[in-house]
Amino acid sequence: MTTTDKASTRDRLLDAAGELFYRDGVSIGVEALCRSAGVSKRSMYQLFTSKDEVLAASLERRAPEVAAQLTEGLRETATPRERILHIFERTERMSTDPDYLGCPFLAALVELKDPEHPASKVAGIAKQQLQDGFRAEAERGGAPDPEYLARQLMLVYDGASARAGARIETLDGLSTATAAALLDAAGVK
Amino acid sequence: MTTTDKASTRDRLLDAAGELFYRDGVSIGVEALCRSAGVSKRSMYQLFTSKDEVLAASLERRAPEVAAQLTEGLRETATPRERILHIFERTERMSTDPDYLGCPFLAALVELKDPEHPASKVAGIAKQQLQDGFRAEAERGGAPDPEYLARQLMLVYDGASARAGARIETLDGLSTATAAALLDAAGVK
Repeated sequence: MTTTDKASTRDRLLDAAGELFYRDGVSIGVEALCRSAGVSKRSMYQLFTSKDEVLAASLERRAPEVAAQLTEGLRETATPRERILHIFERTERMSTDPDYLGCPFLAALVELKDPEHPASKVAGIAKQQLQDGFRAEAERGGAPDPEYLARQLMLVYDGASARAGARIETLDGLSTATAAALLDAAGVK
Repeated sequence: MTTTDKASTRDRLLDAAGELFYRDGVSIGVEALCRSAGVSKRSMYQLFTSKDEVLAASLERRAPEVAAQLTEGLRETATPRERILHIFERTERMSTDPDYLGCPFLAALVELKDPEHPASKVAGIAKQQLQDGFRAEAERGGAPDPEYLARQLMLVYDGASARAGARIETLDGLSTATAAALLDAAGVK
């Protein structure tokens, strides 16, 4: 394969992997993955040493896109409080999509059940980035313990995305109002 | 098989299934399941029509035990607020077990990605029972909208158990304090 071919094969494989693992779970086999991507197993193993590595790379590729979705439509002049609540509003909006199955990073972590799995590490970093974003805004907003507030917000965020993704909750403002109550309690007006 | 043999085979199978599905995920195959339970595939199919049915029955069998764990040590004279917070305290305590992998019902829902799966239905009922318990206490505690408060508490509960189970959060009072902040906001003293 030329370098360009490799890049396009890699992209195709990771896009298909991202979609398939999200929709059907991390236990999807190499056969199904390659078939869906239109890539031979030989080509896959030229690019990655294992399926675990494909899974990790597909989550890594997805992270900037998910982050962009969460901040879409945010006004530049928004206050720290508005920036935090915007993330919850966006997630609630995304959760109304019939294909929504919760946060892809939390789902991977729950399914893999192994913090040492390469994909768990990637997913953990993505979750930590969101928490760091909450912490930075909490700090700007004057929270007395920004890290603690960020961890509280992550509980609500992950509970909301998991429950909405599993279709046992419809949110409809619930997670945003819950986050707002915690911001109120921490004095972030 | 005699009726007694059937009962004991069923129990053995469901106990092994509950443990295995929790530890390794719902994609575990029938071979591994029967091997672990020390039950032949023939015996399994005499009792259940499919692996899906075994999974559903194993979750159903586990529900009363999980509910009992959550209320263990609760004083009879506890106030509604104390009863709610006790559930969070107990979950935090359970989450320090090295084998803890989060709420088994939420994990099954996240992994199955199908609200119509028989095991998703069983898991959904178990989650609804916890929510109903929160609602009843919220009502007794004078919350203006007990159902809304119960849904908020479920976000925190499921976020906490998923994050602790995935080893991206250690809780240590966090979910209890977060629940307490929501009880404060709803005036449940």
